Amino acid sequence: MRRSSFESMSCSVAQTLEVVGDWWTPLLIRDLLMGVTRFEVFQERLGISRNILTERLNRLVETGVVERVPYQQHPERFDYRLTDKGAELWRVIDALRAWGDRWAAPDGAPLELVHTTCGHATESVPTCRECGEPLRRGEMKMVPGPGRTPATPLPRTATPAD
Amino acid sequence: MRRSSFESMSCSVAQTLEVVGDWWTPLLIRDLLMGVTRFEVFQERLGISRNILTERLNRLVETGVVERVPYQQHPERFDYRLTDKGAELWRVIDALRAWGDRWAAPDGAPLELVHTTCGHATESVPTCRECGEPLRRGEMKMVPGPGRTPATPLPRTATPAD
Repeated sequence: MRRSSFESMSCSVAQTLEVVGDWWTPLLIRDLLMGVTRFEVFQERLGISRNILTERLNRLVETGVVERVPYQQHPERFDYRLTDKGAELWRVIDALRAWGDRWAAPDGAPLELVHTTCGHATESVPTCRECGEPLRRGEMKMVPGPGRTPATPLPRTATPAD
Repeated sequence: MRRSSFESMSCSVAQTLEVVGDWWTPLLIRDLLMGVTRFEVFQERLGISRNILTERLNRLVETGVVERVPYQQHPERFDYRLTDKGAELWRVIDALRAWGDRWAAPDGAPLELVHTTCGHATESVPTCRECGEPLRRGEMKMVPGPGRTPATPLPRTATPAD
């Protein structure tokens, strides 16, 4: 499923999938966001083999998404915690959850988001950083940015013909 | 990578991954959001085999994310277009892109988001539906929702002990 040419694909969606783009990794990040830190607890919650879990956690450590924090010396044992880089993936997990709540949860949301500052059960509403209005799908477009390369996949409106 | 027990995992993140949880599917949805509709164009942009592309598109049609719209009769040919259900995945792709722009685009964003209503290059800011304030990671928590089952993976604060 993985292929090396993803790395040369000048696209931030593809680059993020390099880090979180398999089945288990987003669920690991979900659990890390929910406060899970121990190998055995990930394993139990996900029903995942030790080999796969070790490989995925090592990869998240290598990419700077997760850090190991020792909590015992003999034998050495670690908690796994999200770095700041990793914690910012909350928006990806939130977007996955919100879509699933709407389209794949016929009995209602398994979990609800509470905004502790205002105290309400809520949902996140994506708004424009510049004007503050909610973003709607038909009111957005992608344009080439400063990091564009010939490999950047452009929107069809920017590529004149098939 | 796929396992049937995902379906029994009462978690909207896992349920969404059932639909979009492999390497190619999020990139296909990215391209659909960017206006690509033709099989050959997906194939060229992604460098994907016809077999894999056919399988992924068929799965997206089965799950109601994509619809086939005939544009030619002899031989029959289709455009692939996002349904409303599929188009709402823009938030997942937007969150993947934003994270990649910040953490995996050392030369700058390959593409920038423009809010056509206000005309500015922008970013989406997740805000609270109830109070309108920007959501920050330390100011949110997940609580059991109406669709909770014994299989729902709960936050650690809601599970008393290891």
